[in-house]
Amino acid sequence: MVSKVYAVIMAGGSGTRFWPKSRQKNPKQVLNLFGENSLIQDTVFRLDGLVPAENIFIVTNAEQKEMIAPQLPNLNDGNYILEPAPLNTAPCIGLAAIHIKAIDPDGVIMVLPSDHRISNLELFHQRALQAVDLVKKHDCLVTMGIPPTRPETGYGYIQFSNEREDLPDGVSPVITFAEKPNLPTAQRFVNSGDFYWNSGMFIWSVGRILAEMEEHLPEQYLQLSRIAESHGNDDYQTTLENHYNRIRPISIDYGVMEVSKTPIMMITGDFGWSDVGSWDEMYRIQVTENSDSSGNVLIGDAVTHDAENCYVDSEGKLTAIIGLEGVLVINTPTATLICSRDKAQDVKAIVDKLRKAGKTEQL
Amino acid sequence: MVSKVYAVIMAGGSGTRFWPKSRQKNPKQVLNLFGENSLIQDTVFRLDGLVPAENIFIVTNAEQKEMIAPQLPNLNDGNYILEPAPLNTAPCIGLAAIHIKAIDPDGVIMVLPSDHRISNLELFHQRALQAVDLVKKHDCLVTMGIPPTRPETGYGYIQFSNEREDLPDGVSPVITFAEKPNLPTAQRFVNSGDFYWNSGMFIWSVGRILAEMEEHLPEQYLQLSRIAESHGNDDYQTTLENHYNRIRPISIDYGVMEVSKTPIMMITGDFGWSDVGSWDEMYRIQVTENSDSSGNVLIGDAVTHDAENCYVDSEGKLTAIIGLEGVLVINTPTATLICSRDKAQDVKAIVDKLRKAGKTEQL
Repeated sequence: MVSKVYAVIMAGGSGTRFWPKSRQKNPKQVLNLFGENSLIQDTVFRLDGLVPAENIFIVTNAEQKEMIAPQLPNLNDGNYILEPAPLNTAPCIGLAAIHIKAIDPDGVIMVLPSDHRISNLELFHQRALQAVDLVKKHDCLVTMGIPPTRPETGYGYIQFSNEREDLPDGVSPVITFAEKPNLPTAQRFVNSGDFYWNSGMFIWSVGRILAEMEEHLPEQYLQLSRIAESHGNDDYQTTLENHYNRIRPISIDYGVMEVSKTPIMMITGDFGWSDVGSWDEMYRIQVTENSDSSGNVLIGDAVTHDAENCYVDSEGKLTAIIGLEGVLVINTPTATLICSRDKAQDVKAIVDKLRKAGKTEQL
Repeated sequence: MVSKVYAVIMAGGSGTRFWPKSRQKNPKQVLNLFGENSLIQDTVFRLDGLVPAENIFIVTNAEQKEMIAPQLPNLNDGNYILEPAPLNTAPCIGLAAIHIKAIDPDGVIMVLPSDHRISNLELFHQRALQAVDLVKKHDCLVTMGIPPTRPETGYGYIQFSNEREDLPDGVSPVITFAEKPNLPTAQRFVNSGDFYWNSGMFIWSVGRILAEMEEHLPEQYLQLSRIAESHGNDDYQTTLENHYNRIRPISIDYGVMEVSKTPIMMITGDFGWSDVGSWDEMYRIQVTENSDSSGNVLIGDAVTHDAENCYVDSEGKLTAIIGLEGVLVINTPTATLICSRDKAQDVKAIVDKLRKAGKTEQL
C-alpha cells in the first residue's frame, strides 16, 4: 500500500482564555505569543519536510480564514475546508476525511490542533513518521500521548499498557481513555506512570476513520456521506450547509476513541509539547529559559520590586509590580488583565462578564 | 493685641509614592485624586472664611509654581514664596515667617501641608479658630494631633496630658513628640490613648516661631535674618539664593517642637484628616463609601472576578482582575502599577529603580 500523508489542522477555536490578547477578531491561533510566528504559522511550518503544502487542510470558518490566510501565503484556497458551524472535533475530522477521500482514498491523515506548541521539531517528525508507519502496517488508530509533568485536571488522560511485546520504542497499546479527572484522580494517574495526557493529535487512514464514524457515529456519518456525494459539484456549498448543520456536535474522543474496537496505539509525545492553554501555561513554558532570579518572566517594559514567580507581558508601556507572588499581568493597549496564576482558567469568566455587560468592543 | 491670621502652605514635595500618577512634572499636590479638585486646591479652598486670600502664602519652588498657579486663579504672584532649594520644613517655615513679619509682626501663622485631605470642613474651621485663640491668649506653640485609627508606623506621634485643667474641649497640653515608631511601639501608643498622630499642621505667632528658631536653630536663623534684611530690596533674590542655600536642612519637629521650652498645646484633629500618603491610604479613604460588596474600590473601567479588598484606578482603558486579595492597580495611559496593599510605601523603590535605569520619561 502506497499512501500519502495529509495533515488536518483544526483551527476553529476562539481561545477566550488568552483575553485580552485573544479577541473574536484575533483568536488564539493567529496570536504571536512567542515573539516570531503565530501558533498556526508554527503548526504549518512544523510540517515542512513531513507533509507537502498541497496536502495540508485547515478546517476553520469563513471569518477566521480571513485572519489565518494572510499569515500563510504559501497556502491557497484549496488548503482550507470551511465549516458552516463549529460542531466539536468529530464532525470537523469527518468533513476533512471526506475531502481527502475524494482526492486519495488511501491517504493517511494526521489530525493536529492549530494552537499547540512543540519545542523539539526533530523528535516530533520522528514520532509522526513512526505513527504513519504504524497506520500503514496495522491500519490502527494512533494517538499521541504526552508524559505528564503535573496532575493537570484540565486534560483528558490515556491509559496505556506496558506490555509492548515487539512494538518499537515510544509505541504503546492504549487500554482506555479517561475524561478530565479531579485532582486526587489526576494525582493517582500521574503517580501510576501508565497514564499520559491526551494531546488531541491523531494519526489514521482515511478509510479507517470513516469506517469508525460509520460504525459509532452513524447519524453524523449519514450527513457527511450526503456532503461527500456533492463533493466537486456545483451544489456542494448548499449541500454542506444543509447537511452539516444537522449534525449533532460530538468530540472524536467521546464519539470514536473511547468506544472503538479497533486497536489503538499511543505514540510517546516526548517532543516538548504544550497546549498553550492559559496565561499560566505561558509562564510555565517560559520560566526555565526566560526568567529573572526571582522566577519572574518579564516581557516588554516591566520593572519589579519584591516580586516572585510572576508573568508580565507589557505592550507599549511600562508595567511595575511590587510585593506580588504568582500573578499574571497582561497589559495591552486596550485592556489590562491581572490574574492570580492559579485562577488563569477563570479568564473565561471575565470574557463572559464583558459579553453580558455588552462591552462588545472588548470581546 | 489685634492679630491677623496668615496661612503658610508648604508645597514643595514631589510625592513619589503616587507614581505613576505623580511625576516630576505632575506632583502629588496638583493631582486630582478625588475627582473634583487637586489636593492643593482643596487646601486653599478650605481656608475660605478663615484666612483672606491675600494672607495665604504658598511656599514652593519656581518649577512647581508653574503647575500650581494655574489651579489657583484667585491667587497672584504675591501669594507665592519661592524656595531656591528644598531644605525640609524648618527653613521653609522660617522663610515664610520673615515674609509675614515684614507685613505684620503680630500675625498668627497656620502652617499647613498642601497635600492632605480633611473631610469635615466645619469642624476644621472650628478647631483652627480654637488654635488661633490659644495662640492669641498664651502665645504658645500649637500643633494639631490626629486621633489614631491604626498603629501606623509611617507617622510621628504626639504624647499629650489628660490633665487639661481649665483648657477647653479639644485642647490638651503636649508632653512630648515621638519619631516614627516600630510596630510594637505604635501599637502601645495607640492602646495607651494618650498618643495622637502628628499631622504637621501648626499654629503660632510670627514672633514666637522666629524666637524659637533664634534659640534652637541659631545658624538657620542667622541666614534667615540676612534674607529678612534684604526683604523688599532689589538684591532680595541674590541674597535669598546666597543665604538660603547655606542653611542646613532640618524638620520643624526635630529642630523646634521636640526641644522647645515654650508650652505646646495640641488641638484634637477630629475633622476627618488623612495625609493621603500612599495608594493604600487612597483605598482606606474610599472603602467605606465607595466599595463593592467584596470591599473592592473600583474607579474607571474595571471588572473583577473573585477579587477582594482591591483598589483599581483605570484611566482610559479596561482593567480586569481575577483571584486577587488586597492589591492596588493604578492604570494610567503611560504606565501601570500593580502593588500589594501592604507594600504601598515601596512605590518609591520603583521610582528609584526607574531613575537609576535612566527612564527619565517615567519620572
